Amino acid sequence: MEKNTKNKTQISELRQDLVTGDWVVIATSRAKRPEDFAAVKRAEVLEDPEKPCFFCHPEETGQEEDVLIYQDEEGDWSLRVFPNKYPAFSRGKVTKHFEEGPYFGMDGSGYHEVVVTRDHKKQIAELDVLRVAEIIDAYQDRYIDLMNKKSVNYIEIFHNHGREAGASIAHPHSQLMAIPVISPYVNLELTGADLYYKSNKKCVYCTMIEWEMEHKKRIVFENSDFLAFCPYASRASFEVWVIPKRHKPYFERTSTAEKLKLAEALQVSINKIWKALGDPAYNFYIHTSPCDGKDYSHFHWHIEILPRTSIWAGFELSTGIEISTIEPEIAAEYLRKQ
Amino acid sequence: MEKNTKNKTQISELRQDLVTGDWVVIATSRAKRPEDFAAVKRAEVLEDPEKPCFFCHPEETGQEEDVLIYQDEEGDWSLRVFPNKYPAFSRGKVTKHFEEGPYFGMDGSGYHEVVVTRDHKKQIAELDVLRVAEIIDAYQDRYIDLMNKKSVNYIEIFHNHGREAGASIAHPHSQLMAIPVISPYVNLELTGADLYYKSNKKCVYCTMIEWEMEHKKRIVFENSDFLAFCPYASRASFEVWVIPKRHKPYFERTSTAEKLKLAEALQVSINKIWKALGDPAYNFYIHTSPCDGKDYSHFHWHIEILPRTSIWAGFELSTGIEISTIEPEIAAEYLRKQ
Repeated sequence: MEKNTKNKTQISELRQDLVTGDWVVIATSRAKRPEDFAAVKRAEVLEDPEKPCFFCHPEETGQEEDVLIYQDEEGDWSLRVFPNKYPAFSRGKVTKHFEEGPYFGMDGSGYHEVVVTRDHKKQIAELDVLRVAEIIDAYQDRYIDLMNKKSVNYIEIFHNHGREAGASIAHPHSQLMAIPVISPYVNLELTGADLYYKSNKKCVYCTMIEWEMEHKKRIVFENSDFLAFCPYASRASFEVWVIPKRHKPYFERTSTAEKLKLAEALQVSINKIWKALGDPAYNFYIHTSPCDGKDYSHFHWHIEILPRTSIWAGFELSTGIEISTIEPEIAAEYLRKQ
Repeated sequence: MEKNTKNKTQISELRQDLVTGDWVVIATSRAKRPEDFAAVKRAEVLEDPEKPCFFCHPEETGQEEDVLIYQDEEGDWSLRVFPNKYPAFSRGKVTKHFEEGPYFGMDGSGYHEVVVTRDHKKQIAELDVLRVAEIIDAYQDRYIDLMNKKSVNYIEIFHNHGREAGASIAHPHSQLMAIPVISPYVNLELTGADLYYKSNKKCVYCTMIEWEMEHKKRIVFENSDFLAFCPYASRASFEVWVIPKRHKPYFERTSTAEKLKLAEALQVSINKIWKALGDPAYNFYIHTSPCDGKDYSHFHWHIEILPRTSIWAGFELSTGIEISTIEPEIAAEYLRKQ
């Protein structure tokens, strides 16, 4: 059947690349008129300082109702999670598939939420470890709530800091997207981990951890449960991975004690990057096993922190080969010193 | 054997991601000290207006000798190609492989050249078609010269326009990197094209071209030999592909007559994007069959133009799923009108 595109302006679409099988999202709830693209490109200001901050004052700025709220000792809110006002994925129980001639697509149904910490200025690099642990609690709480929803097969948790990293609101926040497909990059890692296990009878991430802990030259920080290191094949200068030292396929099963250790490893790593590079823009995200009910016991969840130390240009976009200009060993040594 | 990292500061390295098999480049000829990253990040100026432009005055600014030079009717140079002063790949005949424990890498040997048109200001959107044809001639000439060099298995030709697209020098120029590996993205396309051919006995790109020409809703421009259209699964708003209408696996075999038609299709497409978005930053690059001596008769070479209409943030970097905010059909309609 041919797709009817009428009246679809509020529904996102997932479209599949016919050649590679990869997916893209056409997020029309964020739609602009074509003639508006030229102007928007040049907007330099993150927010209007005259207006109340969306995230300091969610009620006054038309945000949707919280799906999670944590309070501090005084009973004030310390963290809240609410649906993204301009979701890339639209809440809907059923994911309809469609065709257009040779092409395939499906409704971009899912969940898109924002995790907001109270302080308008203080970013993760500056937060107490206990406040960072609260963020991780929220990731886990929302993950567990969404993982069994119909048509949710993967949950992506990520954080954008700084304009060059795509943060359009300055108030520190993370995001969570629960989506119907398993993403191409995660798929590559799942497949790679599986193949490695079949050849070597060992988790590929455990292999890396063992090597890194023995040789120490790329380690940035470690505690009893987590290792932070610059990966051998870093995609960006000063890239850092935070990974559980023991084999753990599922982020959502992290225990309360482990979460504190994770908060420490994440906060210290980001703080070191912040000091070393002078508050750079960065992204971090969690790669964990899909929640589609299959067995992923050979995967090993982890966090990847990517400072935006350079702009990916034509070569990187064309090839998928990223160029960085510092050896990960030297980057790690410099980060250790901070 | 364990790798010796001493005295390697002038040689790039390719390192393989142990999980995914993807490659990254550590380009140490562009090396900075770790403490310099913070400052560089904030540099806003593309070039010093007091100093002579590197590309207007290659001799005076220490560029290497031309590998190709075209002259105009008056005998002045109109286009020249020379090695990049800060190459991501270093000239070397042999690609040495090395190991470090579980990891694999190889020397980043290859060729990295710059294709410079004479006018300091005029970009492709503003050039005569004949001048654009000259650029394509240069791409082809350099491609043919490099394709049979030892350890060159793929040649990537690309163009960065504007700072947000990674152009560090304002003078219009393209680049060419001849590299020892086949890039992950091209590999995905080759594999996809092959699988599609096996299932459908038809080139996947020819299938798309046929559908697009029949339905016309995503066409931006066409002439006798080339089609320019917004792909069904666009990775960026206003993305345009320029593709030969007939099945052609190898860019380097483009005939003189076809090159003129290609120049027209490329120039018109870029001009329309330029008008529609108000001189946006963009990248374009050629995806063609590798030059490793294998048969790629099911592939179909093409150019992808990616306007930098949004910043890829944590979700895109984590998943490989890009989000765009305009339907390709609406983008194409708007571009047609320019």
